[in-house]
Amino acid sequence: MLNACLLGCGGSIPLPERPLTALSLTTCGRSVLIDCGEGTQVQLRAYRRSLYDIETICLTHYHADHVAGLPGLLLSMGMCGRSEPVTLIGPEGLERTVAGLRVVAPELPFPLRLFTLKGELEEVDMEGYRIGAFAVNHRVPCYGYTLTIPRRGRFDAERARRLGIPLPYWRRLQQGENVEGFAPEDVLGPPRKGIKVCYCTDTRPCQAIVEQGKGADLMVLEGLYGAEDKAASAAQKMHMTMSEAVDLAAQAQPSMLWLTHFSVAMRDPAQYLPGLRQIFPHTVAGEAGMEVHFTFQDD
Amino acid sequence: MLNACLLGCGGSIPLPERPLTALSLTTCGRSVLIDCGEGTQVQLRAYRRSLYDIETICLTHYHADHVAGLPGLLLSMGMCGRSEPVTLIGPEGLERTVAGLRVVAPELPFPLRLFTLKGELEEVDMEGYRIGAFAVNHRVPCYGYTLTIPRRGRFDAERARRLGIPLPYWRRLQQGENVEGFAPEDVLGPPRKGIKVCYCTDTRPCQAIVEQGKGADLMVLEGLYGAEDKAASAAQKMHMTMSEAVDLAAQAQPSMLWLTHFSVAMRDPAQYLPGLRQIFPHTVAGEAGMEVHFTFQDD
Repeated sequence: MLNACLLGCGGSIPLPERPLTALSLTTCGRSVLIDCGEGTQVQLRAYRRSLYDIETICLTHYHADHVAGLPGLLLSMGMCGRSEPVTLIGPEGLERTVAGLRVVAPELPFPLRLFTLKGELEEVDMEGYRIGAFAVNHRVPCYGYTLTIPRRGRFDAERARRLGIPLPYWRRLQQGENVEGFAPEDVLGPPRKGIKVCYCTDTRPCQAIVEQGKGADLMVLEGLYGAEDKAASAAQKMHMTMSEAVDLAAQAQPSMLWLTHFSVAMRDPAQYLPGLRQIFPHTVAGEAGMEVHFTFQDD
Repeated sequence: MLNACLLGCGGSIPLPERPLTALSLTTCGRSVLIDCGEGTQVQLRAYRRSLYDIETICLTHYHADHVAGLPGLLLSMGMCGRSEPVTLIGPEGLERTVAGLRVVAPELPFPLRLFTLKGELEEVDMEGYRIGAFAVNHRVPCYGYTLTIPRRGRFDAERARRLGIPLPYWRRLQQGENVEGFAPEDVLGPPRKGIKVCYCTDTRPCQAIVEQGKGADLMVLEGLYGAEDKAASAAQKMHMTMSEAVDLAAQAQPSMLWLTHFSVAMRDPAQYLPGLRQIFPHTVAGEAGMEVHFTFQDD
């Protein structure tokens, strides 16, 4: 139903052994990419993610390590034969940034649809999944993202029979269609838990992250440093330490937390896990190629 | 004296197993980079080439696979502490391209010096080495490059004694300085063979490549396809096949030829070597990380 793959876990500088942070999300042959630094297209190939399928690219902000790979990716998507539109979502400055980078990718065989974020909290309905964007707190305008696959309520066959709804209408009502005066709400229970992923990097801790992480199957959060004596440096750079990220997860209670966007100076992020797991047990140190598959849970 | 390292050998699309074509040249702690596609900075690190040392970046043309890595590289050079100027050399459009890409790298701790090529043949003296640029024949303005380290003539001690030149002046004259009315020409023989590398990609074969390759210790030439039935496709795309590149080398007679800029569709470039070496024996199929060190030859 939803496959998530962390394409890299580095921050600032792409290293041979640690590519830059980006997340690929695929549902039913349609993909969303969050962030696109230098080398992200190479990582997509390395983990056999389709470039052709990418229909939405969410950019947290316009620092090079999150966006410099965009023109190359768009060109490669064109070479893969994509002709359907691609939606780009990002903070103010999206048009200017895309126009600048497209100096090396002026011609594309598909249209770009730019969606510039302005509010604190915005939603983009992509028919089948929903992108949520929430403002966070970095040196420049920066957003975190959620991807949600909603799930309709359970079909009440007993009720459908009682209302005398003909059998051929059932499937269409179940899929959310109105049929001959009958509405889905007539036969569907309350919406059930869908699938939700929350991604957030390059920010100081803030309450919006907790709110948006609630109910998430996966949170992907920046943990720039692990050592406690780096807390002041993280704050000064408007970034987040591992323990700050874990504190947010402990409040939001997602099913799983992947830490990412590690400083070049931090050689072994996993060394901090024992302490972090005392605060939030389901904490994982991100690694390039880390993957998880989510399906709707049984009720 | 000069160390050359091929950072990748792919064309068009960076692949996990085949990074994009670029050449790093280092002499006495000063580096020249020719081309800078997505991932070139990662390759520099992979092969332990200093980013800090890069003082000249030569761009053949502005297709993304040759230039999209520029903003990321410049930022990383800044993070490495570079503050000395960096010279960028490229065809017309250099200012516009650099300005566009710098939308994600607006602030750098070093000045950029842009040198826009206009003529068929241009030279930039970098004090200690010379960059030559020669126009080639692609779909867009495109240049090949030579890097030459000149070597002064042999010092004639006998003659210096005969002219009564005091011993303390000898070293300075040898280094090309005028001293107290004496000139280097008074005591130096004719210039000796220095070191020369010639790099050329994304072009149809042309006479300029032969001329510029003459006397080269190393030629690095595009060989987009190996199969003969791809010759028409290469011509149509304004690229060069392996056998066309080898024909040029056979005319120029460099000491060595590295083929590069291989098509994504060509899995095993080395399979074509036996045939190619019948035309020019010193032909090598490029591989990422391939390296060679040149010193002045004994006379």
